[in-house]
Amino acid sequence: MTGDACATVGPVKIIGTGLLGTSIGLGLTTRGVDVTLEDVSPTILSLACGVGAGRPAEVGDPSPTLVIVAAPPDVVASLVIQALEDHPTAVVSDVASVKGVVRDEVSRAGADMSRYVGSHPMAGREKSGPTAATADLFVGRPWVLCPNEQTDPKATVRVRELAVDLGATSAVMDADQHDEAVALISHVPQVVSSLMAAQLESGPDQALSLAGQGLRDVTRIAAGDSGLWVQILAANSAAVVPILRSIKDDLDAAIIALETLNDTEHDPAALSSVARTITDGNAGQARIPGKHGTTQRQYEHVTVLVPDKPGEIGRLFAEVGTLGINLEDLELEHSPRQPVGLAKLAVLPGEGRNLSQALTDNGWTIAG
Amino acid sequence: MTGDACATVGPVKIIGTGLLGTSIGLGLTTRGVDVTLEDVSPTILSLACGVGAGRPAEVGDPSPTLVIVAAPPDVVASLVIQALEDHPTAVVSDVASVKGVVRDEVSRAGADMSRYVGSHPMAGREKSGPTAATADLFVGRPWVLCPNEQTDPKATVRVRELAVDLGATSAVMDADQHDEAVALISHVPQVVSSLMAAQLESGPDQALSLAGQGLRDVTRIAAGDSGLWVQILAANSAAVVPILRSIKDDLDAAIIALETLNDTEHDPAALSSVARTITDGNAGQARIPGKHGTTQRQYEHVTVLVPDKPGEIGRLFAEVGTLGINLEDLELEHSPRQPVGLAKLAVLPGEGRNLSQALTDNGWTIAG
Repeated sequence: MTGDACATVGPVKIIGTGLLGTSIGLGLTTRGVDVTLEDVSPTILSLACGVGAGRPAEVGDPSPTLVIVAAPPDVVASLVIQALEDHPTAVVSDVASVKGVVRDEVSRAGADMSRYVGSHPMAGREKSGPTAATADLFVGRPWVLCPNEQTDPKATVRVRELAVDLGATSAVMDADQHDEAVALISHVPQVVSSLMAAQLESGPDQALSLAGQGLRDVTRIAAGDSGLWVQILAANSAAVVPILRSIKDDLDAAIIALETLNDTEHDPAALSSVARTITDGNAGQARIPGKHGTTQRQYEHVTVLVPDKPGEIGRLFAEVGTLGINLEDLELEHSPRQPVGLAKLAVLPGEGRNLSQALTDNGWTIAG
Repeated sequence: MTGDACATVGPVKIIGTGLLGTSIGLGLTTRGVDVTLEDVSPTILSLACGVGAGRPAEVGDPSPTLVIVAAPPDVVASLVIQALEDHPTAVVSDVASVKGVVRDEVSRAGADMSRYVGSHPMAGREKSGPTAATADLFVGRPWVLCPNEQTDPKATVRVRELAVDLGATSAVMDADQHDEAVALISHVPQVVSSLMAAQLESGPDQALSLAGQGLRDVTRIAAGDSGLWVQILAANSAAVVPILRSIKDDLDAAIIALETLNDTEHDPAALSSVARTITDGNAGQARIPGKHGTTQRQYEHVTVLVPDKPGEIGRLFAEVGTLGINLEDLELEHSPRQPVGLAKLAVLPGEGRNLSQALTDNGWTIAG
């Protein structure tokens, strides 16, 4: 899918060989680009070299054309400043998830901003470190480029080529726009998910035993690294706080409406604020783009009961495949204490009935 | 899977033939039980009869052994009271999602509480109404029974038999315990999801275009019916408000910590409250039971690139099936503007490497 076409010309130097740095290195070496690697930890560096992400940077190496700083957020800016100084002809980029603070710190240091292009590949995994790296980590993911006012357009092109070489979809934004965007679609959702999940810590077992897919979905990303997230939230507090304040206003209104329900002086109109939050949520949820960046389609869903034994799920999908009906989405849901799973298949409008019928004919039980 | 064993002896009368009432009727008629149906809307009643959920109740019908009230929350209690009066030998149950208010209203009316058993089948669909009904709606789902202090144990058994006949897993709880449990695992998550999604309504398109799976998951249930949810939240406000208040306290602390970061009098320890919320969220999220009611297992994940054309996903799962490796969970993720999907397969620890290797051998690209 990614092919071997590669516009990036090395040597590329990568500073910080965790998941992202090593994945970039792997993606480039598999395309024949010369990559040198650097990390404060000799062990991490050695692991990154071991998986084939590049060779250790050495004194006397030819000058890199491109330097990528892929270090933890709190040291990114100083490493970018150092790289701009050490490599006076190289384009320098970083992959930190908050861009304004890095730009400001690099600018304050009087570094050569014309060669600096902030960037943010929106990819990740549950696992971290160089051994979790993969050359395909960025395939199909957005990679945001944040040139500053002094950035040479040629430098931006250099980083865009890297993103596209690695299979990502590039987008150019101002650093502040980027930070506001990720506050809304990533940082605040993380806080909200954590706020909900934190309430589960002290809940009775009996309550948790009734948990369904809704709770699982809302709290899935709450399993994030607290150290990393505190750094991200602190770095992007200017964009995160106004959204948290807006949520707090809606939450305050909901609490007041619900707790004064039985007061004699209760205002029946207060409940309408709760209804409005839910209606606004309907509208907001519908704005999240679906497949291929389009607005979410209204799919038809067919839910199939799947016995929990090896091969059954494969048999189901094989049969769906032979019908020539494209699955638009799917979820597999396990039922507590039941030897049966529910496979929820999403297909284009008009295809649900055909799918249900064909699966029923083949002996499957349709649950909806 | 559900077999045809059926302990319930009819006639069963169902009052309210929406999704739940009609699904109960269908589940019973397919097991040979005589079912009579009643609904305030002749059209809805006729649709329910049309799909085979039972026959219209008539004057002169034999006395029902069991009456199930499956009407909207705000009329449930009065219909239960009426049913207890109209059918002096029948066990009466309802399927409303909040149990304390119904019990209290039935009790205040001086009705025969010994024959009343509140119940809550935790099943639903995106679609509503009798035409969305299915006999298998309850298979593998929890069905909570809430006998009151005066309930005859034989009446509880009658409703438990119904739940088990329809494939559900029954659990007995006090009505107040039930209401606290669903506040925590269903009603508050709904509010939290809506609060987040409501913020998206006015966000820039460019920000929304970067949305990933995390945001989709957190906001999925925000696509709920606002009229129904306001009724549920109002009926369960006593249990919902304390949890919302606790979330508000954590949110307030996070806002203060983040907005005073750059103040000269900033307390560096304030950020630790943010870290604690995220850490508490880690712990809370880990408590959600996984498959078969056990604690969530730590699965290994293998992410496979899947070209977006008919049959590819089927071919993938067919191959996984022939390997004899049981999929514990899976997600299909579509990448904006890319002709490729990511299938994330979860398998038991130790099986990830084998699966990766076998799929690579068969020509698949592993993204992680």
